[in-house]
Amino acid sequence: MKFKVKLLGVESGGKPFVTLSKDDSEELGIKSSGRVRIQSDSKILTAIVNVLTKTVPKGIIGVYDEVKSYLNLKEGMIIEVDVAKFPTSLQYIKNKLKGRALTDEEIFEIVKDTVEGNLSEIEIASFVTALNSVGLNLFEAASLATAMVETGKRLQLNKKIVADKHSIGGCVGDKTTMLLVPIIASAGITIPKTSSRAITSAAGTADKAEVLMPIDLDVEEITSVVEKTNGCIAWGGALKLAPADDIFVQIEYPLAIDPLMLPSIMAKKKAVGSTHVVIDIPSGRGTKVKTIGDANLLAKDFIELGKKLGIETRCAITYGEQPIGYCIGPALEAKEALEVLMRVKRLPDLIDKVTDIAGILFGMVGKRGGKQLAMDIWSSGKAESKMREIIMEQGGNHDVKPDDIEIGEFGLDVAADKSGYLLWIDNYKISDLARAAGSPKDKGAGVKLFKKVGDSVKKGDRLFTVYAEKSRKLERVRKFLEEEIVIGVGDRMEMLIEEVREKPLTKRAFILER
Amino acid sequence: MKFKVKLLGVESGGKPFVTLSKDDSEELGIKSSGRVRIQSDSKILTAIVNVLTKTVPKGIIGVYDEVKSYLNLKEGMIIEVDVAKFPTSLQYIKNKLKGRALTDEEIFEIVKDTVEGNLSEIEIASFVTALNSVGLNLFEAASLATAMVETGKRLQLNKKIVADKHSIGGCVGDKTTMLLVPIIASAGITIPKTSSRAITSAAGTADKAEVLMPIDLDVEEITSVVEKTNGCIAWGGALKLAPADDIFVQIEYPLAIDPLMLPSIMAKKKAVGSTHVVIDIPSGRGTKVKTIGDANLLAKDFIELGKKLGIETRCAITYGEQPIGYCIGPALEAKEALEVLMRVKRLPDLIDKVTDIAGILFGMVGKRGGKQLAMDIWSSGKAESKMREIIMEQGGNHDVKPDDIEIGEFGLDVAADKSGYLLWIDNYKISDLARAAGSPKDKGAGVKLFKKVGDSVKKGDRLFTVYAEKSRKLERVRKFLEEEIVIGVGDRMEMLIEEVREKPLTKRAFILER
Repeated sequence: MKFKVKLLGVESGGKPFVTLSKDDSEELGIKSSGRVRIQSDSKILTAIVNVLTKTVPKGIIGVYDEVKSYLNLKEGMIIEVDVAKFPTSLQYIKNKLKGRALTDEEIFEIVKDTVEGNLSEIEIASFVTALNSVGLNLFEAASLATAMVETGKRLQLNKKIVADKHSIGGCVGDKTTMLLVPIIASAGITIPKTSSRAITSAAGTADKAEVLMPIDLDVEEITSVVEKTNGCIAWGGALKLAPADDIFVQIEYPLAIDPLMLPSIMAKKKAVGSTHVVIDIPSGRGTKVKTIGDANLLAKDFIELGKKLGIETRCAITYGEQPIGYCIGPALEAKEALEVLMRVKRLPDLIDKVTDIAGILFGMVGKRGGKQLAMDIWSSGKAESKMREIIMEQGGNHDVKPDDIEIGEFGLDVAADKSGYLLWIDNYKISDLARAAGSPKDKGAGVKLFKKVGDSVKKGDRLFTVYAEKSRKLERVRKFLEEEIVIGVGDRMEMLIEEVREKPLTKRAFILER
Repeated sequence: MKFKVKLLGVESGGKPFVTLSKDDSEELGIKSSGRVRIQSDSKILTAIVNVLTKTVPKGIIGVYDEVKSYLNLKEGMIIEVDVAKFPTSLQYIKNKLKGRALTDEEIFEIVKDTVEGNLSEIEIASFVTALNSVGLNLFEAASLATAMVETGKRLQLNKKIVADKHSIGGCVGDKTTMLLVPIIASAGITIPKTSSRAITSAAGTADKAEVLMPIDLDVEEITSVVEKTNGCIAWGGALKLAPADDIFVQIEYPLAIDPLMLPSIMAKKKAVGSTHVVIDIPSGRGTKVKTIGDANLLAKDFIELGKKLGIETRCAITYGEQPIGYCIGPALEAKEALEVLMRVKRLPDLIDKVTDIAGILFGMVGKRGGKQLAMDIWSSGKAESKMREIIMEQGGNHDVKPDDIEIGEFGLDVAADKSGYLLWIDNYKISDLARAAGSPKDKGAGVKLFKKVGDSVKKGDRLFTVYAEKSRKLERVRKFLEEEIVIGVGDRMEMLIEEVREKPLTKRAFILER
C-alpha cells in the first residue's frame, strides 16, 4: 500500500517506530507492535507500528526521527508500506517463555535484534522477565555473553596477560578500583579497567574517577593510555562494549530484576580482552548477596562462566555491612581515594580490601608476593605516582591535590540524639540520602561519616554531614531525614526490628550496577 | 523544577508520556520509565518519562497529546515538574516476579493502574510474562476477574437468571452463537451475548454478526434490546466491559501467550451479570486445547473459577478438528448461519453443536426438554423469527435474505490434483488463508469449502474457493497457496508428517480470542 509521510518531529528513543491509523492497520492486517516493511528510494527498513485511534488520518504514516533519518524521508513523500513478519528472534523469545533453553544461534539473534532496534519494549521486557522467571543455564549465560561481545566494540591490546576486577555492586563508598588499578599497573601488569556510572547507587566508579580525569575515552584513546601506563579507569558506556546490555538494563531497572548480571559482567570483561579476572562479591545484610552461602553459589557460577568464555576467574567474597571508608558521593570519594593513595589518610578497611584483591590477582598471573607486594606498592608511593601518570594520560591534572576537589557548599550536620555505640549503618539509606542531596549528577553532593560501626558515641556528637551543591536539594535531604533513620545508635542492640501490621508494603531495596 | 512545555502533537497511544533531555533527567534523578509529577493550574498528573538524547533541549518538557489534553497545556507554558515515585502496583508486580501469590488488593491496584495508564508497557509486559511463567492460582484468577469487572462498565438487567455461553476459540467457521442466542431467547431465557472481534482468527462472532446488524451498542441500547427480545449479539469492545483486558491482549498478542484467558473470559461474563454459563472448549489437533485430558483440566478450572465468582458454570468439550460448516469469513459465515436459521441449509455439525450447548444451558436453568427442545425451536422456525427480532432491535434489516449478503467479487477456485479422500483440513492455515484474502476487515473475503473430511474426491474436483473484495489481495492468496498446503487429499494417510532437519524454525500457531 502507498502511504504519505508525515514527519512527527519526535525521537522514539532508538526504535524504528511509525504510527498508522486504525483503519489502515486493519487494512494491512496488523495490530500495535506489528511490523511493516518500508521502502524508500534505495533502502528498506522494518519498523514497529503504533496503531493510533485519534490523530492519524487514513493514508498517512507518521514517522519518528529515527525512521526518517535512516530512510531519508521528507514530509509528504509517498512510500510503499507492506506487512512484514515479526522478527525470527521473537519466536525464540516465545520458546524461552515456554521454558525451553535457547541455543547459541537463537540467543545471538535475540541480542542482535535487541541492539538493532528490531524488538519492541514489550518483547524485550518479556525476554528479560522470562530469563528472571524461567532462569538461564550457564550455557545460555555463555551464549549471551558471547553475543553481547560480538554485537559490540572490542578492545584489542595484544597482551598475553590482561588483568581485571569487577564488583557486583552494593557496597556503598567502595573506592577499591581507584587504588587497585594503579597498584596492579605499577607491577607491570596490564589492567584496562572500564567502569559504569551509577544506576541505583550514589556513585559508580566512573562517576568518581571523572572527578579526577576525563573518562569517556574511545577504544583508540584507551589503547594509547594503557600502552603507556599499563592501566586506565574509563567509562564503559562510551566504548559501546556490549551495547545490548545498556538496553537490557533499561528494562531491568523499573522491574528491579537483574537476571543478566552474570553474562553482562563477563561480556564486558571479554570485550576488553581480559584473561584473568577477580569478581568482588560484597556480602551481608546491606548488599546484593545476603549470605555467604549464596555468595559461594554465585562465585561458582562466575568461575564456571569464566571457563566457558576462556577467562580465568576467581571471586573475593568481601564484608559489606557498612560503607567502605567514610565518604559517599563522587567528589567526596575521589578525594578520599586520593588521600589514601597519598598516604595522608590510612583507612584500614579500604586498604585491606584493595590489597587482598590485588594479592589474588598477583597470584593468578604468577606474580610473587601477593598481598604484601600490593601493600609495598601502596606504602612506597608507587601507586600514587602510577595514578598520577594515568590521570595525565587520560587528560586530567596529574598534580591534583585533595583540596582542589570541590565539595558541595551546602552542608547539613546530623548529631546523635543519645549516647552509646554506633550499632548499624543502613547502606541503602545512606546511598539514597546521597542521591537526595544530588549524587551522582552533582559531583560535590554526598555524605561524610564521622563514626563507623562499633565507635562510641556521645549525645550531640556529629554522626555525619550531608553535602549538596544546591540549597533546594538540601531541603529534600531534610525531608528524607525526617522520615528515615539511616544510622542506629544505642547502648544495646534493640531486638525488635519492626512490628508488622496488616498488609505492609514491602520496600525491598534493589541494587543494579554493571 | 520549572519546565517549558513543548507540544509534540503526537498521540502516545493512551499512556501519559512526556520526554525530557538526558541532562534534566539526571538533574531530577530519574531514568527512562521513571515517573514525574506535573502540576498545571488545577490538576496534577503522574507521567512516564522517555529520556531522549538528541532533539530535546534542556529545560523543555515534550508533551504527548494525552498529557496535553488532561492538563490543558499550551505551547510555551511554564509548569512545575517533580520526581514522582513509581506506582505502588509496580511493587506488587515485582512480588509476582519473585514468584509470590498476590492478594485481592494487590491485584486490584495492578489492574486499576493498567486501566488508568499508570504502568508502562515494560511493566505490564513483565506482569503478563510473569503470570505466564510463574502461573496464577484460582484465587488470583478470581481477584483478577473481579478487578477487571470493577474497573469497567457493567450491565444490570435485573433478572434472576441470565444465561451465557463462550467459546475459548480456535474453532474455525464456528457460527454457534448466531443460532444459540435466538434459540435460548425463544425459550424465554435472558441471554445478553457480547462477543469479540477477531484477534488472530479470520472472523470473530462480532465480525460475523456485524454483517447482519449494528453491534456496537452501548449499555443502554443492549438493555433495551434484551428487555424486548431476551437476547442480543453485541460487540463487547464498545461496552468497555473489562477494559484492562483490552490492554493485556495488546501484550499477549505479539508474545503469543495467553495467561489471562480464564479471568478475562469470566470477567466479561460477570460484567454482564451472567448467572449460568456454558464454556465451549473445542478440542483436537487444530485447536487451542490439543487433548481431551487437557480440556478436562481446563474445564475444572473454569467451573471452580465460576464458583468463586458466583456464576454456575459448565463446560462443553467439543470436536474441533475441522471447520464447522463450509464457510469461513464474516459475510460467508453470516450467510451460512442465516441459511441454517431459515432451514434452507441443514449442516449436521453446526446444528448438533448448537443444540447440545443449548440443551446444557436449558438443563442448568431448570428448563425441561434439553437438546430436543432446542431442536424443536430451530426446526419450527421460532429461532429464525427471534433472530429477525434481534436484528430489528439492534437496527439491522430484519427481512434480510441470504442473497442480500455481499461476498467478495474476486474468486479463486482450488481443485484437487489427485483422486482419493479428503484426509485433513488444517484449521490454522484455512484461517490464515481467509486473512490473506482480507478477512476480517473486508467482510466479503473468506473461504468456502466444497468438501469436508472423509468426503471422496476426484482429481479436478473443486476443493474450495477463496473470495476477496480486492484483486490485489487475491495475489496475496496465490502466493500463500504456492507455499502452504491447507487441505490433504489422498488414498491413504501419509505417515510421514515432516522431516526435521537441523535447526527447524518452530512455527507454532497461536489462537488468541476473547
